[in-house]
Amino acid sequence: MKILISNDDGIDSEGIWVLAKALKEIGEVFVVAPQTEQSAVGHAITMKIPLRVQKRIINEEFFGYAVSGTPADCVKMGIRNLMDSPPDIVVSGINHGSNTAVNIIYSGTVGAAREAAMMDVPSIAMSITDHNPDSFEYAGKIAQKMCKLVHKHGLPNGTLLNVNVPNLPEDKIKGIKITEMGKSRWDDIYEKRIDPYGNDYYWLTGKLIEEDETLNQDQFAVKQDYVAVSPIHFDLTDHETLNDMQNWDI
Amino acid sequence: MKILISNDDGIDSEGIWVLAKALKEIGEVFVVAPQTEQSAVGHAITMKIPLRVQKRIINEEFFGYAVSGTPADCVKMGIRNLMDSPPDIVVSGINHGSNTAVNIIYSGTVGAAREAAMMDVPSIAMSITDHNPDSFEYAGKIAQKMCKLVHKHGLPNGTLLNVNVPNLPEDKIKGIKITEMGKSRWDDIYEKRIDPYGNDYYWLTGKLIEEDETLNQDQFAVKQDYVAVSPIHFDLTDHETLNDMQNWDI
Repeated sequence: MKILISNDDGIDSEGIWVLAKALKEIGEVFVVAPQTEQSAVGHAITMKIPLRVQKRIINEEFFGYAVSGTPADCVKMGIRNLMDSPPDIVVSGINHGSNTAVNIIYSGTVGAAREAAMMDVPSIAMSITDHNPDSFEYAGKIAQKMCKLVHKHGLPNGTLLNVNVPNLPEDKIKGIKITEMGKSRWDDIYEKRIDPYGNDYYWLTGKLIEEDETLNQDQFAVKQDYVAVSPIHFDLTDHETLNDMQNWDI
Repeated sequence: MKILISNDDGIDSEGIWVLAKALKEIGEVFVVAPQTEQSAVGHAITMKIPLRVQKRIINEEFFGYAVSGTPADCVKMGIRNLMDSPPDIVVSGINHGSNTAVNIIYSGTVGAAREAAMMDVPSIAMSITDHNPDSFEYAGKIAQKMCKLVHKHGLPNGTLLNVNVPNLPEDKIKGIKITEMGKSRWDDIYEKRIDPYGNDYYWLTGKLIEEDETLNQDQFAVKQDYVAVSPIHFDLTDHETLNDMQNWDI
């Protein structure tokens, strides 16, 4: 299995090298990741400035390519220019922090995996539910398991798996749930501050409003100590509203 | 009708002021837009650096707020901090260039409208199918019409309208079609060049592979000189695959 690995925390993050190490046990890994942290860039791509690519030797076992762009750029660049032939699968992560519910929309980790899906390459977005996890060990195991499952069963063109792993040791995990994107959402607050020169500036903060209540919703499942696996696609058409609109006098 | 206007081409673009002028005829407009061009940033938001906001007087009739962030930041900031009460509708655009098929994924214009939909505010993304349109006049009229229709019929929470207007005079437009997000996609190419210092750099280019063949697909409809109106939502769950996965041995 030929595996392209990317992320949004950047090529120097811990999560991506845990992932590379775990997946090297089951296939040939190829790492292309952003040169700098790209959290919350969603599916941004770089068009108005050129990209730079730099080869990075990590240690005797691993090297990767650092791209001066976004997660989606890395996947495009990896598949189109850097790899000799397309990968069998793309895995993005392991993200430091969960990507459940509306966070999926903002997530660069999911953006990278979605770009792969748009290129008809099966893909998986991997996240752990803490920005400073105690251990990535179990998440690495889950990444292996998910790769094997996707390799065995396949995924429809355009669909990816979004996987969230609780920040817990393996013996505290209750199981794995197949889930949908939850309804939890952010109550955003912009905190206003004044800089040393007397000018206003604003920091985005906020509180997640938990609106999920069943184990088939990703955010609720991870809160209940389950791994959540959601199949995600990029067909955004709201077919129900499309039908309703036939009665509009357009 | 209280209308929040944003875009991704930035507060100094022509399209946003054409839109403001057109919508001022039917309501009270409030403009919050990126300080700089933000094309193809998708649904990126700014979390790791603070935002700045600057009031801009355009002329005796119009002013707006320039935000040092992305289109989605502008909508959040407009609704949470800058407006006294939430708008009845958010309109994003008029984008210089079409946002059909997969372009919807990369689009900052759609990102702004989707952010509004995520905040339960009905919204419309408006684009014209040329980067240097001959005239925005007809697109301005369509924006008025769509606002009135959304105001009259409402939209389900979480759904927005993505509207693409051909770059043609009104008498050449064949009509308005209610459409779905098309299947056309990019064949990406990274053009490699060498800078004056001998280092490689890469420009993203590509060709749109037209895979749409019916008038109920946005990309085909605009090519056939129709205005395309697609209802778009942000529930990304692939329910069909979710059902199929019940047979996986997870």
